[in-house]
Amino acid sequence: MLVKKKAGCLLAGMMLFPMISYASEPVEPIKPVTNVNLDEVELGKKLYFDPRLSKSGFISCNSCHNLSMGGTDNLKTSIGHNWQQGPINSPTVLNSSLNLAQFWDGRAADLKEQAGGPIANPKEMAFTHMLAVDVLKSIPEYASEFKRVFGSDQIDIDNVTQAIAEFEKTLVTPNSRFDQWLLGDQQAITSYEHEGYQIFKTSGCVACHNGEALGGNSFQKMGLVQPYKTSNSAEGLAGVTGKDADRFKFKVPTLRNVELTYPYFHDGEAETLQEAVDLMAKLQLGRTFSTDENAKVVAFLRTLTGDQPSFVLPQLPPSTSKTPRPEPFDN
Amino acid sequence: MLVKKKAGCLLAGMMLFPMISYASEPVEPIKPVTNVNLDEVELGKKLYFDPRLSKSGFISCNSCHNLSMGGTDNLKTSIGHNWQQGPINSPTVLNSSLNLAQFWDGRAADLKEQAGGPIANPKEMAFTHMLAVDVLKSIPEYASEFKRVFGSDQIDIDNVTQAIAEFEKTLVTPNSRFDQWLLGDQQAITSYEHEGYQIFKTSGCVACHNGEALGGNSFQKMGLVQPYKTSNSAEGLAGVTGKDADRFKFKVPTLRNVELTYPYFHDGEAETLQEAVDLMAKLQLGRTFSTDENAKVVAFLRTLTGDQPSFVLPQLPPSTSKTPRPEPFDN
Repeated sequence: MLVKKKAGCLLAGMMLFPMISYASEPVEPIKPVTNVNLDEVELGKKLYFDPRLSKSGFISCNSCHNLSMGGTDNLKTSIGHNWQQGPINSPTVLNSSLNLAQFWDGRAADLKEQAGGPIANPKEMAFTHMLAVDVLKSIPEYASEFKRVFGSDQIDIDNVTQAIAEFEKTLVTPNSRFDQWLLGDQQAITSYEHEGYQIFKTSGCVACHNGEALGGNSFQKMGLVQPYKTSNSAEGLAGVTGKDADRFKFKVPTLRNVELTYPYFHDGEAETLQEAVDLMAKLQLGRTFSTDENAKVVAFLRTLTGDQPSFVLPQLPPSTSKTPRPEPFDN
Repeated sequence: MLVKKKAGCLLAGMMLFPMISYASEPVEPIKPVTNVNLDEVELGKKLYFDPRLSKSGFISCNSCHNLSMGGTDNLKTSIGHNWQQGPINSPTVLNSSLNLAQFWDGRAADLKEQAGGPIANPKEMAFTHMLAVDVLKSIPEYASEFKRVFGSDQIDIDNVTQAIAEFEKTLVTPNSRFDQWLLGDQQAITSYEHEGYQIFKTSGCVACHNGEALGGNSFQKMGLVQPYKTSNSAEGLAGVTGKDADRFKFKVPTLRNVELTYPYFHDGEAETLQEAVDLMAKLQLGRTFSTDENAKVVAFLRTLTGDQPSFVLPQLPPSTSKTPRPEPFDN
């Protein structure tokens, strides 16, 4: 069992090896969050946990991007309003601020645009932006907090999604053992895990899974060398660009905290890391990892779990007699 | 706006007026929790938030007893597995350790017995105790935590519900403004709120809503003076005792944090406190409150909101390749 170095030692390490140990690596350490509006973050945290942004009053952002479970629901595809089966695996919200775009097909430019999607999606939260805003307006504590945060009596979906996105920016996970290694702590990962990293680099995984998030920064075809067989009907980027060449191109998912974000792929069909690594090697790289290689890569991937978001469960202000009531059932 | 006294002042107040100010009152202050097993509490907190105790992997204790929302789901009746409509309003988990029994009909003797109910209820979490235990056994971090907490390699539903119940014992809400008043702080409630308390006492509400939790300590017939009209088919205590005299007898709900625990009654039909107070006066006391009386009683009830549970959102240990996977959909 490796013991994490204390922050003081880490800082000392950083000063001794400034940008040396990882300057030549294709992966960069996650940077702790800075430069967020803390008032927006606190408001956004409440909204993230508030199921009153859904028609049923039962589904919140945290239902499918559960911050107790790596920012996912750990289901193949999600459960939406009226127990509808979602079309695609819910990607993790952790480190999602590092993505070049949001959703598997990149149809939202940023976190703010993304946040509005599920609220109004009839298969997810099944509400409308106007009704969600009406709920918030009817709750005096929200009204006063919006006013304090945004300096206006107006509450609109723009402010709502701005606050949620600002909270989501704080959901980065620095300080993984691998990042400690990148920052110069040679003992932070084992030689076995290091061998896994070498295989990860030399076999080509790193071609797509690179940068701060080990992914999230490009779209790639699922099934590059061998076609991927799936019953999932998602077509990926082509649905956004209309280009046939973009069929089955999906945003490369981050590998940060990947041991927590199972099951894998846009269809959630790979249940374990072992299975996901095996299939990725075949489909994308045209190679077959030996059992030993696979195990080493998986061991490396498990070093990518960083500090999970840590905050006090938010308390939500109560509805009033003016608050539109949730409608969970059609009867 | 009233400012809460600091703990130091409160303690001083308690010493100056030991048991004097509320000795003659039918309501007692909520006592802060003591005498819990903190290791069990920490384990139970994880289990409380873990949706893997449900068949779908989507529903946890916190889904219907949401600790961001007064320990309830704020729905008339809850949403269960496959979006089934629950038969009855989910009572708050806050201060539930003070109840003489659990569930509206008292069919569980205590919190531990209660905790096993929803897990195996096909309309709620739709799992079995054996499958839930299998899930936990397959997760090494849980296995080692159970061993550390209970000193045995065995994980069983007895330990699971013991830990959940121990966590729930911590969910008391001391320090409401009304309790500050009971403890001698004359300024903690307004004279208007105090008038509401007097009406509450003199009109007979306090006959059932008394003690530390203002309820939870007896079963009473819903519709004592006037019959209650509802389409809800729950029969209350009679379902437990088999006695016809117990039909429509329900456990008197606590009024602690009642401004957060809407909607009201076992069928959730009263949306607002105003409506609930009006109907209770008519049905149980045979009287009609004036608008002024109603408003004062409601103002008093709003002084019963105590300190909400405050803790860091727990992180759940990840499943492994051996963990049985959730089955949210039948296909």
